[in-house]
Amino acid sequence: MTPTVAVLAGGVGAARLLTGLVRAVPPAEVTAVVNVGDDMVMHGLAISPDLDTVVYTVAGAIDPDRGWGLRDESWQAMATLERYGGATWFGLGDRDIGTHLYRTQRRADGAPLSTVTAEIARGWGLDLAVVPVTDDPVRTMLTPAEGPDAGVEIAFQDYFVRRQHGVAVAAVRFAGAEAARPAPGVLDALGGAGTVIIAPSNPIVSIGPVLAVPGVQEAVAARRETVVAISPLVAGRALKGPADRLMRELGHEDSVVGVGGVGLVDHQRAGHADAVRAAGLRCVVTDTIMRDPAAAATLSMVALGR
Amino acid sequence: MTPTVAVLAGGVGAARLLTGLVRAVPPAEVTAVVNVGDDMVMHGLAISPDLDTVVYTVAGAIDPDRGWGLRDESWQAMATLERYGGATWFGLGDRDIGTHLYRTQRRADGAPLSTVTAEIARGWGLDLAVVPVTDDPVRTMLTPAEGPDAGVEIAFQDYFVRRQHGVAVAAVRFAGAEAARPAPGVLDALGGAGTVIIAPSNPIVSIGPVLAVPGVQEAVAARRETVVAISPLVAGRALKGPADRLMRELGHEDSVVGVGGVGLVDHQRAGHADAVRAAGLRCVVTDTIMRDPAAAATLSMVALGR
Repeated sequence: MTPTVAVLAGGVGAARLLTGLVRAVPPAEVTAVVNVGDDMVMHGLAISPDLDTVVYTVAGAIDPDRGWGLRDESWQAMATLERYGGATWFGLGDRDIGTHLYRTQRRADGAPLSTVTAEIARGWGLDLAVVPVTDDPVRTMLTPAEGPDAGVEIAFQDYFVRRQHGVAVAAVRFAGAEAARPAPGVLDALGGAGTVIIAPSNPIVSIGPVLAVPGVQEAVAARRETVVAISPLVAGRALKGPADRLMRELGHEDSVVGVGGVGLVDHQRAGHADAVRAAGLRCVVTDTIMRDPAAAATLSMVALGR
Repeated sequence: MTPTVAVLAGGVGAARLLTGLVRAVPPAEVTAVVNVGDDMVMHGLAISPDLDTVVYTVAGAIDPDRGWGLRDESWQAMATLERYGGATWFGLGDRDIGTHLYRTQRRADGAPLSTVTAEIARGWGLDLAVVPVTDDPVRTMLTPAEGPDAGVEIAFQDYFVRRQHGVAVAAVRFAGAEAARPAPGVLDALGGAGTVIIAPSNPIVSIGPVLAVPGVQEAVAARRETVVAISPLVAGRALKGPADRLMRELGHEDSVVGVGGVGLVDHQRAGHADAVRAAGLRCVVTDTIMRDPAAAATLSMVALGR
């Protein structure tokens, strides 16, 4: 039997890794445990950005230029919304809206998010398991350190999309995390996996909320020897998004050691090898930039030690 | 000052009349008091079919072939929904969805339906007042007389769209009507109008819920001499929809007298003139088929006695 792989996942970086991982190992052996701290209700729609980014990307349906949403997208609903002066800062394409309509109706019918996510993944013909870390609401809240909202918590998408992560952050909180329970299958996937990969997602706001669900960090720590964290930073910089800035602002080191300091890692790949080793971690230096699925597959093989 | 006109309105028939009425009199003098019994929440979206049909039609934006929804429409969201096996029997075009997103968000923000409707009408540049008869929930429920659901109440769109009004009906109820209050402006518009027109909409399921809101029927009855009902039946048949069948099934006469028996009418136009007069109503026989806005304008002038 092939050893299974569990991946702690945020959005874009994790999704790219998964496109490679499902080429490196049988997709049915892979479970992605995905962040839900970015989830929101907007215009009445239940939106799960990281879950959708993972599904769309592995399905080959993600828009390659934007990096979010579906390719061959149209924007007619947003155009109507604009006519009324409605909020259009969170772009929802027409094709993408169908996913949110489905999720919203199913949730209203009483189906848990994990069930709906499995249905959506099946709709795209995926064989890997895509699982929200929890079926309970966890919401990533950020407190700006500056500007008109200094000291006042705002929701993740308000920070990330509306303000284009352009404001310094004083604190991050995962509202609801203490009361959240891991979704069905999450602890089994982490406990039974041959390898647990921490994807190259934002350590603070993507991996952080996953580990904040009680039981998840413990499950990962219990198998420390088989946990591989892939740094999202290249030469101390995030390829995309505010990971490097957030880590500096919140007092984590701007390096792979900083990344290691956030999660629970054993192997640590890429970057400042000596600093990583000095921190007591094993370290493999490799190319972590995933230009295409083939590069992501190569990185996956390195992560799996094959 | 031009005498104002208030119109009790359902969807298609009323919307067509209004396209003519706003050509016959200054639009700012017209108030459409619109049925909300067809309203529903689906996929999390707050949908108000009759309000949208009125707004889209008067704006010249209705799809002329379907008679509902917007022209130049695309169906990408529905295609995605279908991928998951979601319910697609209630067709929502991408452009149209923008209206529902706006309404849903504004309602969630606490804005009453009448406020949101005014904003939507303004978004289409309309000068007439489009007002839901009430800001409170009123839901038209029908009890099938036959089939697997015989005796079990179903919601209006379940009857009208999903079953394509193909099942005999034993009873109609306007759930919530007793507790509903007329929306701001409704009673003033009815009380102050030079003419109140009952549009050629389905008397049972379009005009019925409007009159069921406490105070509306009384306001109309109080000005009986200036109320003009336009029959939706031509030679005893509905041009569209199940008005004739519903009236038979529920024991109303299949004629303009039947129509008169449902509402409160004074003048009664088209059809069996003698029967109408025998019922104590004044009657004007005229062409009630609104082939185009010009025909609707001519009909409006007849209704206004000009």
